[in-house]
Amino acid sequence: MKDVVFDYDRAERIGLPEAVFCQGKARATVLDLLQQFARGNGHPVLFTRLDADVVADLPDAVRDGIDYHPLSRTAWGERMPAQAAGRRVAVVSAGTADGAVAWEAARTLTYLGIRNTVIEDCGVAGLWRLLERVEEINEHDVVIVVAGLDAALASVMGGLTAKPVLAVPTSVGYGMAGQGEAALRSMLVSCAPGVPVLNIDNGYGAACAAVRILGLS
Amino acid sequence: MKDVVFDYDRAERIGLPEAVFCQGKARATVLDLLQQFARGNGHPVLFTRLDADVVADLPDAVRDGIDYHPLSRTAWGERMPAQAAGRRVAVVSAGTADGAVAWEAARTLTYLGIRNTVIEDCGVAGLWRLLERVEEINEHDVVIVVAGLDAALASVMGGLTAKPVLAVPTSVGYGMAGQGEAALRSMLVSCAPGVPVLNIDNGYGAACAAVRILGLS
Amino acid sequence: MKDVVFDYDRAERIGLPEAVFCQGKARATVLDLLQQFARGNGHPVLFTRLDADVVADLPDAVRDGIDYHPLSRTAWGERMPAQAAGRRVAVVSAGTADGAVAWEAARTLTYLGIRNTVIEDCGVAGLWRLLERVEEINEHDVVIVVAGLDAALASVMGGLTAKPVLAVPTSVGYGMAGQGEAALRSMLVSCAPGVPVLNIDNGYGAACAAVRILGLS
Amino acid sequence: MKDVVFDYDRAERIGLPEAVFCQGKARATVLDLLQQFARGNGHPVLFTRLDADVVADLPDAVRDGIDYHPLSRTAWGERMPAQAAGRRVAVVSAGTADGAVAWEAARTLTYLGIRNTVIEDCGVAGLWRLLERVEEINEHDVVIVVAGLDAALASVMGGLTAKPVLAVPTSVGYGMAGQGEAALRSMLVSCAPGVPVLNIDNGYGAACAAVRILGLS
Amino acid sequence: MKDVVFDYDRAERIGLPEAVFCQGKARATVLDLLQQFARGNGHPVLFTRLDADVVADLPDAVRDGIDYHPLSRTAWGERMPAQAAGRRVAVVSAGTADGAVAWEAARTLTYLGIRNTVIEDCGVAGLWRLLERVEEINEHDVVIVVAGLDAALASVMGGLTAKPVLAVPTSVGYGMAGQGEAALRSMLVSCAPGVPVLNIDNGYGAACAAVRILGLS
Amino acid sequence: MKDVVFDYDRAERIGLPEAVFCQGKARATVLDLLQQFARGNGHPVLFTRLDADVVADLPDAVRDGIDYHPLSRTAWGERMPAQAAGRRVAVVSAGTADGAVAWEAARTLTYLGIRNTVIEDCGVAGLWRLLERVEEINEHDVVIVVAGLDAALASVMGGLTAKPVLAVPTSVGYGMAGQGEAALRSMLVSCAPGVPVLNIDNGYGAACAAVRILGLS
Amino acid sequence: MKDVVFDYDRAERIGLPEAVFCQGKARATVLDLLQQFARGNGHPVLFTRLDADVVADLPDAVRDGIDYHPLSRTAWGERMPAQAAGRRVAVVSAGTADGAVAWEAARTLTYLGIRNTVIEDCGVAGLWRLLERVEEINEHDVVIVVAGLDAALASVMGGLTAKPVLAVPTSVGYGMAGQGEAALRSMLVSCAPGVPVLNIDNGYGAACAAVRILGLS
Amino acid sequence: MKDVVFDYDRAERIGLPEAVFCQGKARATVLDLLQQFARGNGHPVLFTRLDADVVADLPDAVRDGIDYHPLSRTAWGERMPAQAAGRRVAVVSAGTADGAVAWEAARTLTYLGIRNTVIEDCGVAGLWRLLERVEEINEHDVVIVVAGLDAALASVMGGLTAKPVLAVPTSVGYGMAGQGEAALRSMLVSCAPGVPVLNIDNGYGAACAAVRILGLS
Repeated sequence: MKDVVFDYDRAERIGLPEAVFCQGKARATVLDLLQQFARGNGHPVLFTRLDADVVADLPDAVRDGIDYHPLSRTAWGERMPAQAAGRRVAVVSAGTADGAVAWEAARTLTYLGIRNTVIEDCGVAGLWRLLERVEEINEHDVVIVVAGLDAALASVMGGLTAKPVLAVPTSVGYGMAGQGEAALRSMLVSCAPGVPVLNIDNGYGAACAAVRILGLS
Repeated sequence: MKDVVFDYDRAERIGLPEAVFCQGKARATVLDLLQQFARGNGHPVLFTRLDADVVADLPDAVRDGIDYHPLSRTAWGERMPAQAAGRRVAVVSAGTADGAVAWEAARTLTYLGIRNTVIEDCGVAGLWRLLERVEEINEHDVVIVVAGLDAALASVMGGLTAKPVLAVPTSVGYGMAGQGEAALRSMLVSCAPGVPVLNIDNGYGAACAAVRILGLS
Repeated sequence: MKDVVFDYDRAERIGLPEAVFCQGKARATVLDLLQQFARGNGHPVLFTRLDADVVADLPDAVRDGIDYHPLSRTAWGERMPAQAAGRRVAVVSAGTADGAVAWEAARTLTYLGIRNTVIEDCGVAGLWRLLERVEEINEHDVVIVVAGLDAALASVMGGLTAKPVLAVPTSVGYGMAGQGEAALRSMLVSCAPGVPVLNIDNGYGAACAAVRILGLS
Repeated sequence: MKDVVFDYDRAERIGLPEAVFCQGKARATVLDLLQQFARGNGHPVLFTRLDADVVADLPDAVRDGIDYHPLSRTAWGERMPAQAAGRRVAVVSAGTADGAVAWEAARTLTYLGIRNTVIEDCGVAGLWRLLERVEEINEHDVVIVVAGLDAALASVMGGLTAKPVLAVPTSVGYGMAGQGEAALRSMLVSCAPGVPVLNIDNGYGAACAAVRILGLS
Repeated sequence: MKDVVFDYDRAERIGLPEAVFCQGKARATVLDLLQQFARGNGHPVLFTRLDADVVADLPDAVRDGIDYHPLSRTAWGERMPAQAAGRRVAVVSAGTADGAVAWEAARTLTYLGIRNTVIEDCGVAGLWRLLERVEEINEHDVVIVVAGLDAALASVMGGLTAKPVLAVPTSVGYGMAGQGEAALRSMLVSCAPGVPVLNIDNGYGAACAAVRILGLS
Repeated sequence: MKDVVFDYDRAERIGLPEAVFCQGKARATVLDLLQQFARGNGHPVLFTRLDADVVADLPDAVRDGIDYHPLSRTAWGERMPAQAAGRRVAVVSAGTADGAVAWEAARTLTYLGIRNTVIEDCGVAGLWRLLERVEEINEHDVVIVVAGLDAALASVMGGLTAKPVLAVPTSVGYGMAGQGEAALRSMLVSCAPGVPVLNIDNGYGAACAAVRILGLS
Repeated sequence: MKDVVFDYDRAERIGLPEAVFCQGKARATVLDLLQQFARGNGHPVLFTRLDADVVADLPDAVRDGIDYHPLSRTAWGERMPAQAAGRRVAVVSAGTADGAVAWEAARTLTYLGIRNTVIEDCGVAGLWRLLERVEEINEHDVVIVVAGLDAALASVMGGLTAKPVLAVPTSVGYGMAGQGEAALRSMLVSCAPGVPVLNIDNGYGAACAAVRILGLS
Repeated sequence: MKDVVFDYDRAERIGLPEAVFCQGKARATVLDLLQQFARGNGHPVLFTRLDADVVADLPDAVRDGIDYHPLSRTAWGERMPAQAAGRRVAVVSAGTADGAVAWEAARTLTYLGIRNTVIEDCGVAGLWRLLERVEEINEHDVVIVVAGLDAALASVMGGLTAKPVLAVPTSVGYGMAGQGEAALRSMLVSCAPGVPVLNIDNGYGAACAAVRILGLS
């Protein structure tokens, strides 16, 4: 198998390090990629949507060199990008079922050297759970809202903070939830102004957007 | 034109008086129906989706005998169904643009002899507007929630009351609001349990469902 | 694994006990939750969409303490919420394939202490099967209609009773049934007035809506 | 303008006379076609979806030679196809709003020399209206069912007759009725077996299908 | 397990014998049903969408008493409905991939005692294959057209015969074929008049519709 | 109003002259553009989707200098691109209602100096109309197929010629025709191999694709 | 008519001044609102989607006090929010047809006191037009990309800048453009990382999101 | 099993050799077909969508006689169609995930005797990767563009070449990528003129279309 040629140029040009999206790739291909990076070439790489059972198949030596996080299905090696300064991001999610996406965002931020707090179980059907945390959330510089089903959290959050809010719909739910389409539509037409939206389940993308924003200062 | 044959039997059997849905009917047909009822046949009838300019075309004598409400586009004559007892319904809406649907529900309730309160501008992007009214809302027996866009109000309301909640999505919005489809999906997958949903813009139907519920006691 | 933090506050506030939706959760997570509740913490919990083969994996001692019902995929322990008084709910379904949803509704009602009758095989293509049961159905206080395919039962039932009717579309069918979308649309635009609709396959939600309604009297 | 070249060959080959679908054609084109046929060329032609205000613009001499029916928007001249023998078709519709489609089917049948009965207002929310007419309906050889909204009539009718049933969804309704898509889906997944479906509002097509069937004997 | 209660009444009333749709039913349920019928109760039953590996699990004695056809996934026992007289149906399909649906129609007809001919590989991209068979097809009384992808065969066939044509879209294809939605839409808006359509893959339904038609004479 | 800055560079680079798509532009803007080009700047321009009543509003002197074609809604001035050599394109359409799109393609080809033949009324429901013209069609170098409804013509044509075929779906039809979506899907999944598809009603695009192809030789 | 009660609280809390969305509101209502604000109440207000012919109906005195911009359909009075400091936003659009949305964003920014540059006609089919402006664009702090059709500009732009990028799909196009759905989907699945998306045509929302971002520093 | 009857006539008539689409066919059927062709009948055949594990099940003698390519899932035997002359096709793809489709196109071209170059990883988020290869691409006679997600490559490529461009959307992506629907819509409404589109993942079809085009000279 030929070595993968990564787009390090773009990474440098737009300030976002290289990432490998593992979902949909053949198991053999992913295993091969992980071992190439274990052999090292000087560039840090983030792996996303990496299943635990693929990691389990790695040789011990390789697996030990990787920081793998099962819930978010993300991994990286020892080499990480340079640390960013003091900005902080809050990742606020509606329910525990949104955890995989919330943590994909959080782990991507951590990998990129940005401090972050994950604040879970803030679904609006139990409004006080969110209200108790608003002050804490507003101490962060960017707020990533992660929610499935009706995604009502995005609108409520958008009305409670002046900070940049990034909305990530999740594919949580059944029937008319439509693999996240209800949440996506809900966020796109949110009654709170100025809340842009990422693709369904795209925690990685939200973290990248936060990095662009934090690069401002 | 032949006289319309109404389904008075069903009305008696299921407790909901006859109604005429005017939208989509030819102007001449609607004018004719209004005059038939002005001549009277002993049965009360509710007209919904009746445009103001149709009413303006009626002979003065007929128009004077009709109680017409332009925002809700509803009308009735002097004969009304018997008054229901003391139950009360709250109609809670998200924004002024939802007014036509909220008032269609309210007027239908009034016509059916049920006391009701319309509580507008409770959209969740300005959460305190809703929170200030929760106690008042909970003094009613049934809550009808009317909202377009992301319809997040249904979920928040559903978490703040133990009363029966009926959710009505509205066609307010543009782009991915999709003539109410975003609101409908949002309400159907609401994170608040036990909140059933009516068709888009169906204020009349919500009032009928409330009547069925109030008939219980 | 951290203990789950349930939203007992909301349960108390809106009168609906806590439930765990197991579908889509990792097998290990569900097994862990079941054992936490077996150890007991004083609060009753309802499990929905719980697969039989997960239950089969429980230690004997735990499994013996659970009331599990395979068709509806629901379970509860010994602790149940306080019994509600004499109101009764009829759960009427179109075909045997709708059984899982009908029984999810019925079991949830039983768990909540509400008497209920499941009346199956009332599909309107064999109209007399329904007509023979109408009188019996009308002796209940709320009617839950469960149907897939064309969901015509909701309209017919809505015209035969003055009681509150809650319609639950099911994902039964193939081709243009669209995993329940045909049934959902059909119920939302039903020619019978005042029949609100739950999400596809949401028997649990219908039971909760019934509890809200029965709380009235 | 060049004269239109009709496909009389096909008409002969498959036994269905030529028809002109006027909707979507420019007003000038339709007026021109009507006058060509008034001048006569020996072939009978049926005009469908022909608006009354176009007919009003015809010269008196032309208009007087045309049999125009405003509700169904159909017209023909003096020349009609040869009369078919004794077979009869019942056109059963759910509500008055379905009238345009029901009468398009009926008028097409009349034009083709087939006796037919239009039986309106049989919507299943008032079931007895249909049940009272079942015996009469079953005296016909083919049943065309015309219904919008949930189109539940197709399933109920399909369970009450052994005759060929042709289902025509109509674009009646708003919101999730989706210009007839709810009715179409409902009919396609009907719980009554052997009920094929035409395109939305296609009364003309149902009549043609009936002609094919009646040609059998 | 309780015995299934079949709707023999409807079967008699509308002339279509009882059928069991096995798809989506639990394996244990289907096995149980097959053995009930092997024990016999005097009524003939048709099984559709019955997978070969379920049949393989039956006790030998039961399996030997069943006429099973793997491609169409249909089965019946020794008892069959009374034979219908001389009418014949042609089942014309576009490609070999449509075979499962074409043979479901053909087998259902055979079970109902109606003679039929399956004519395969008539896709219109190789037009002469169809043209060579047109005369033969026209010797039948009803034509069932089975096609996936663009389903162009329905329009071409509809223009080559005056016989009743029933169109069945199949879920053959990928991408924008959309599990048969392209074929369904294509057939519904066919440029050939009078061609009604069944649900996607519904070969059984087409056979039932043919039975209704043939019952005429 | 500022003068429009056209992308003459691209025109030269990819060999397709500049075009102005008028639909959706304000009437005043289009009138202004037409007069700018009448004043002349040495570059030829093609106007598409230009309504006749806009042309009627032009000063006589401007209108006389324009070659306008109402059916295709295209126009150009005296300056035209250099003539292409002897290649020829056949534009084959299904029905007269497809004329506007077929002629948009033909006129664009004429403007670009390419000889073309429009062959109309070849819908496959009257198959012999197409079969009579196949030989003539095959004398052309590229075939553009224009069809709405089921667009079956694309598959049939694709099986009758080895020439490059470009398929253009049209928005002709009602109900499930879906403004051309049925035709588009049908063409994309055509059973004839190697037939690429343009956007709905995009006769201009098909002509441009033909120009790219003819540029080969 | 009762005076409108604006949500000035929210405006203060989240830093976004009050705006009136005029589209879909009755002409009389909008005229009334404009005159209320002309009478003044100390709060600045932005009007969006305000049609020129409504403005033309205002009394001269009112109209003269309003800064109206026809292309963007925005208006404000003399009172404007306090000026923001030196940050700058680039609004980059694909074609002239996207102008209304691009200028709605630009005008909203101007109203909010933020400097901005509109850079039009950067569609990627003529790539050099964009490449010539990249350096200039990168001198801004936030980039708003406005594009319809395939919205490819969002991906290309996202790969050419490290700045925060906000993508706004427009409803420009016909056929499968689907009133902006093609552009929206394209932007949501962009191959450039970290580019969040607003609702179709929502230039106002993009400006609000930029304000949130610029509030950071 | 009966021998398959291939449509060799069509192959000759339209110049495209016979192909077997294996996806969706039963494993046993495909194995049988492969062995029939190994026994030989003088006609070359191309197998597409053929899974590696099916090939692994072939007897050694058969497998050795087949040229199988796992990434593209294509195979052929020793007999190949006659070689075409010097024309060349470039297959340009956006990312490595598009490889299966790009190579299906390339392998089909090779099978048909047409020289081709596969140029991968040209996604527009890293624009320079494409720009560096434009000159090379323009040395080919036809360009096939293969891209998923936003498919922006089709528009950019269409603006950089005057050659015939064929666009193939792929099902790469998640969420709103919708199994390739975002890419398909994007390509159909491309801002580059004259770029026709194949079905999602249809690399084979693009190669066939190229063959039709190259047959011109």
